[in-house]
Amino acid sequence: MAVVLLVTPRTNEAADWARLLRARIHDLDFRVHPDSGEAGEVEIVLAWKPPHGLLARFPRLRLICSLGMGVDHLLDDPDLPRSVPIVRLVDSNMIEQMSEYALYAVLHFHRRFDVYERFQRERRWQELPLPHTRSRRVGVMGMGATGEDCAHKLAALGFAVFGWSRTPKRVPGITCLHGADGLTVFLAQSDILVICLPLTRATAGILNERTLRALPQGSYVVNMARGGLVIEKDLLASLDSGHIAGAFLDVTEEEPLPADHPLWTHPNVRLTPHIAGLTNPQTAVEPIAENIRRLRAGEPLHDLVDPALGY
Amino acid sequence: MAVVLLVTPRTNEAADWARLLRARIHDLDFRVHPDSGEAGEVEIVLAWKPPHGLLARFPRLRLICSLGMGVDHLLDDPDLPRSVPIVRLVDSNMIEQMSEYALYAVLHFHRRFDVYERFQRERRWQELPLPHTRSRRVGVMGMGATGEDCAHKLAALGFAVFGWSRTPKRVPGITCLHGADGLTVFLAQSDILVICLPLTRATAGILNERTLRALPQGSYVVNMARGGLVIEKDLLASLDSGHIAGAFLDVTEEEPLPADHPLWTHPNVRLTPHIAGLTNPQTAVEPIAENIRRLRAGEPLHDLVDPALGY
Repeated sequence: MAVVLLVTPRTNEAADWARLLRARIHDLDFRVHPDSGEAGEVEIVLAWKPPHGLLARFPRLRLICSLGMGVDHLLDDPDLPRSVPIVRLVDSNMIEQMSEYALYAVLHFHRRFDVYERFQRERRWQELPLPHTRSRRVGVMGMGATGEDCAHKLAALGFAVFGWSRTPKRVPGITCLHGADGLTVFLAQSDILVICLPLTRATAGILNERTLRALPQGSYVVNMARGGLVIEKDLLASLDSGHIAGAFLDVTEEEPLPADHPLWTHPNVRLTPHIAGLTNPQTAVEPIAENIRRLRAGEPLHDLVDPALGY
Repeated sequence: MAVVLLVTPRTNEAADWARLLRARIHDLDFRVHPDSGEAGEVEIVLAWKPPHGLLARFPRLRLICSLGMGVDHLLDDPDLPRSVPIVRLVDSNMIEQMSEYALYAVLHFHRRFDVYERFQRERRWQELPLPHTRSRRVGVMGMGATGEDCAHKLAALGFAVFGWSRTPKRVPGITCLHGADGLTVFLAQSDILVICLPLTRATAGILNERTLRALPQGSYVVNMARGGLVIEKDLLASLDSGHIAGAFLDVTEEEPLPADHPLWTHPNVRLTPHIAGLTNPQTAVEPIAENIRRLRAGEPLHDLVDPALGY
């Protein structure tokens, strides 16, 4: 028997997960937290934001599958069992969703839809200058599966796309920079910055007063990764000064964003409630079931997390 | 000497046109309306919305170059000299701009950014269901150079793209329908309709009470072509009934849109002031200069308009 425990606040998806996994694992024993049954029987956990300490309670746990693309929601558990492998969710459907979000947000600023929205409210029929797409530099920060897909789709529209990552990458058609030295050069040419980084010890607060200042005057920031990557008070200050002309944010330091937070009403901020990529059991089940099969067959796992790197 | 007359309300672009044409035509005599000089000398006109009757005043006119992609602004002149060839402007830079607009408008509705905008005003952090991109059917109405580029770029994002045109077309990756019979089938599967048609006698008012009703319940309309293609009172009625869930309009029957027009304030309408594609002399000069060269060399013209078809 494969004893699989689902741990998620989205309990309405439990029946879908049960059905989809059962169609792929013939000897499945599927359980839903908090009805985990005998703790010693749980072998595999599928988890999104599990309560701290929960995963340490399963002595025979062999695999933790993240139900989100990031794993910061797992690694921030101080009692996480360090010997159990964790796999990220890499779902091409979610990556496509993230790229849709990035294209929309980049076009929002590139084509001045933020200003035209205001013009409509003012019943103002007025054309604004339109820079060439080829002269608009878009910086994609984080060149993992999501960043690379975004970069390709932005480049296909004609934008001048740059990528930045921790380690060197070669991506056809994209100018890639890396590491601390590359970061300042990268930021200085990002007219529109799209953040696709994982949240780790190394990336927390990577967009702060100093790095925001390194962006061009009048540039734009799109964050569809994690709120903790951006120091919000620094972002608000650069928006207020006009150094940053606009921000399009799907994630915030605290989620849901508190009702009295200034980001809700800032005139140059567009906010969405962490919907850039939504885990869909229909498509996410494939990479998850494949990793469960690999675990049981003793084959190497896909998308294994390096806990030291945090992704 | 090549005597070229520029006729446009955008007189601030005259110096650019002069410089760009001079670099390509060594014996250019460049004039700007209303300073057209001796009428019998004018051979070539570059025109955007010329005053009715003006073009008939040049007895030796040999070529009319449209400064917009459409030519309805020329053909609606009852005194237009019928024997003079007219060429459309087909500028890849403008086509790319149009596709950017189409992608933004389609993603706006597909990803519910219209609703999330309202949620932000209400300080509401709430996720909405997200349909698969592959199950979202986008109908591109008009498969000329612009429609085809839009269709390809939408298909590259994973949308189920359909095309419709007057005559049969074959476009790889796109299901193409045509003619009056194809129209009803096409409309019935357009969850999001993107209008890329020229405005002609055959297409004026093509989106009306009857054809809007043929669209699926809760569908969306994007018009970035010409206002005259859509009967605005019928569109407003279908928006009010909820049959059409939203409209994204770059063009209106009357431009600029009168300040008291209900489209300005309809909650499900996004309006922009005819900016989807802007003629840029820097890039538009290439196809125009090439047609002038062809005219003078006695070679066949590119993008010649058939006045009977109206495009």
